[in-house]
This record gives sequence, structure tokens and C-alpha cells, in this order.
Amino acid sequence: MNLAKVVGTVVSTQKEQSLEGLKFLILQKVDLDGNDIDGSIVAVDAVSAGVGEMVLYASGSSGRQTEITDKKPCDAVIMAIVDSWEVNYETRYKKGVND
Amino acid sequence: MNLAKVVGTVVSTQKEQSLEGLKFLILQKVDLDGNDIDGSIVAVDAVSAGVGEMVLYASGSSGRQTEITDKKPCDAVIMAIVDSWEVNYETRYKKGVND
Amino acid sequence: MNLAKVVGTVVSTQKEQSLEGLKFLILQKVDLDGNDIDGSIVAVDAVSAGVGEMVLYASGSSGRQTEITDKKPCDAVIMAIVDSWEVNYETRYKKGVND
Amino acid sequence: MNLAKVVGTVVSTQKEQSLEGLKFLILQKVDLDGNDIDGSIVAVDAVSAGVGEMVLYASGSSGRQTEITDKKPCDAVIMAIVDSWEVNYETRYKKGVND
Amino acid sequence: MNLAKVVGTVVSTQKEQSLEGLKFLILQKVDLDGNDIDGSIVAVDAVSAGVGEMVLYASGSSGRQTEITDKKPCDAVIMAIVDSWEVNYETRYKKGVND
Repeated sequence: MNLAKVVGTVVSTQKEQSLEGLKFLILQKVDLDGNDIDGSIVAVDAVSAGVGEMVLYASGSSGRQTEITDKKPCDAVIMAIVDSWEVNYETRYKKGVND
Repeated sequence: MNLAKVVGTVVSTQKEQSLEGLKFLILQKVDLDGNDIDGSIVAVDAVSAGVGEMVLYASGSSGRQTEITDKKPCDAVIMAIVDSWEVNYETRYKKGVND
Repeated sequence: MNLAKVVGTVVSTQKEQSLEGLKFLILQKVDLDGNDIDGSIVAVDAVSAGVGEMVLYASGSSGRQTEITDKKPCDAVIMAIVDSWEVNYETRYKKGVND
Repeated sequence: MNLAKVVGTVVSTQKEQSLEGLKFLILQKVDLDGNDIDGSIVAVDAVSAGVGEMVLYASGSSGRQTEITDKKPCDAVIMAIVDSWEVNYETRYKKGVND
Repeated sequence: MNLAKVVGTVVSTQKEQSLEGLKFLILQKVDLDGNDIDGSIVAVDAVSAGVGEMVLYASGSSGRQTEITDKKPCDAVIMAIVDSWEVNYETRYKKGVND
């Protein structure tokens, strides 16, 4: 999994039928200090995440291991909203504090 | 998934039999402003996309989760044509406007 | 698989239900001398690893081939705690010595 | 899929038994002008490709979706020989012309 | 698949039970001239490879398509020991000669 920040949304009318109703969010990758780093990705939201939240996403076939993405052409899913993380026993990100 | 722009087509006569009839499109990767970035990929078209359109594609085994790519040696599929996307509540791309 | 050092933990309350009870650890990638290199990843812990330990992790669908990650949206798992490694018959890392 | 040029062959006597009889070709990645770019890969040939030809290859589990690679430890397969491709309606490569 | 040179071994006592008895080798990636390039990986040995040998390894789910890695958290397997390879009809590596 990777840490990322939800920064936006993608709208698509003409899409593979099985994807109907899914929410596609744009994720900005972040480093262990929560700062933006190169690279963005679009993931299906399985946990009701919102813009500005830090999340974990799973890629590849693991992106299909949720009820809403099962057997669909989806290669990335947000499977957790992050409350906090620490590195070497020091808090580097805490929701509501470092946003 | 990743955002990309359809820029071209690949023609192949001698190919794995199961791929007969599929359309192979060349995708140029783009950043969140819709500008070209390094890297292109060839994907099977599952949504009748055309040159110049912004799309989402899914990679890996997820590229086989459409009716036309199921069980075929295809590792990338265009599964959505993009109407628009926004970053931090600001529209960065809108079809017909930013093309 | 890749060598990495466990450097931290991620806390998440709101997550895909199937992930309940799993421990998400932050891994720092290391080179063959055990020095940090660019890149971190978050992996589920299947071997009771702790911060400071060198580990091996498996990515992609292989990250789901443990009892605790089976069929879950998890794309990386720590499957071994490293005691030592050698390169060209010379020990480059030994637990308790090079930590 | 990715565009690449077949540049060579790999010979191996001692290999996983299921791979007996397969042809391993060395591919040089190319850009959309057909020029070499950084990176090579070894793929199993499923379409009788030869040195000098431009091809498409599929990676990952999709590399096993041909009759000859099914259920084998093969993560890349040449699934098409390229006749031509065009970018923005302009031919960038044509077999026999741009070789 | 990718070309690499076996350069070392990893020792682990505390690991996922299914991995008991497998040999973890450190691989150094090489270019088409057999020279080291950036990047190393740890792979399970399925062909009795030894330090100093050039090998092919398969990644991802394909790393599980051998009898010894089947259904295990292993994302890379050595599936061939390389005797030689050639690029543009010229031998670039021959075992026992270019080692």
C-alpha cells in the first residue's frame, strides 16, 4: 500500500458498464512527512474518503478485493482513511493537526 | 487507474489469435493539468475512445476485467472516457474546453 | 521480494472491513549495504516484525498469499524477518550487529 | 502493452521444466518514433517474431494468457508483431520502411 | 523476465511458514552487456542457481508458477540459468567466458 492525499475527482459518463456508480478520486502521492511527491493516481473509493484526507490505497489485483470493485477493470482502491502515522516512534502525521 | 490522452493507433496482422478484432490505442500519459508527461502505453479500447480524448486506463490483470479482454494477453484497457476532472475543487480539464 | 527496514506504523479507524485487526507497517527501502534508499511502502505484517528490524516483503497478488491477507485489498506483506544477508560471500548485514 | 524491438535471444539449458521449448527473446524498449529508450526485457515469443521486428508485449499475469505460456513462470509475452503505428494521424513507423 | 546476476543470499528464521525450506537469493540487475545496473531484488531459487551465475527471473504472480512457490507469498522466482545471450546476432554473454 502507499500513502497519498485525496486531491480531486474524475467525472466520466462513457465507461465500462460494471464501473457504474463508483467514485473515482485523484490521489497525490506523499512522502513520510506528508509532503507531495511526484506522481498521482486515480483510485476507486471504497471507504467514503473526501478531498484533503490522507489515505492508503492498494494497487493491482488487490484493487479488486473489495465488494464494490470485485471483478471490475479497477487497478487501485482506497481501502483506508489514515488517522495518523509515526516514523521512529515520532508522529509525522495526525488528522486534523497536520492537514 | 491513470489519466492519459489517446494519441494514436497500432496495426498488427500477425498476433495472438484471441486478440483478433481488438483495437489497440496509443496513450500519452498526462499530468493533473492535462499536459503530456514522459511515458506512453498501448491499451485495448473497451469504450470506443478516439484520438484526442482523455481517458482512464487500468493496468495489469485489471486490464482483463472487461468482456472483450477477458482471458486475453492484454495488460492495459481503456475503461472510461473522461468528461472532466478537478483538483482542490478547481476544474483542471473539461472535454471540449481544454482539448 | 525486496529488502526494507521497518520504520513506523499507520493508524486507520475507517477502513475496508476485511482489514480489521491487521497491522500496517511503514517500510523504508534499503540497498545491499542496508542504507536507506528512496522509496517507502506500507505493508501488512504477517510475521510480528517490529520497528528497526530488516525484513523481506512481497508485493502485488503475492501480498495476499498469507492466511491473514487472503482475499483482502492488501498489495504488500512482510513475509520474513531478516537475520543476515551476504553479497559475494561477505556479510553485509547481521541482526544485532549492523542495526 | 508496450512497443519494443526484438534485438536478441537468450539461451538456457537449466530451467524450470514447464518452460522447455519456449523461445526467450530480448526486447529493447522504443519511444513513439521507434527510437531506443532505456530499458530492456526478456519475453516469451508467442507469434514467431524475429530479430529486428517491432512488437507489442504484455506483462505480468497477462503474459500467461496464451496457450504456450499458460500456468508457467513467464511474466512477459510477445503477443503481436507490429505492421505500423501512427500518432496524431501521422505514420511514425511502417514495417519495411522504418526498419 | 529480466536478466540478473546472483550475488548473494538472505537468511531468515522467522518467516511465513509456507516459505520454510526455500532459498532466497539476492539478484543484481544487469544490462545487455552483463554490467551491473541500478537495482537489486530478492528471488526464490527454483533452478539451483549459485552466486556468480547469470539468470532469468519472473516477477509478480508469475513468480508463483513453480512447484515450490505455488500459493506462497513470493513475488519473484529464478526460473532459468542463462548459458548465453546475443544482441543483433553478436554474443554479449557466454557462461564461463564472460564471468
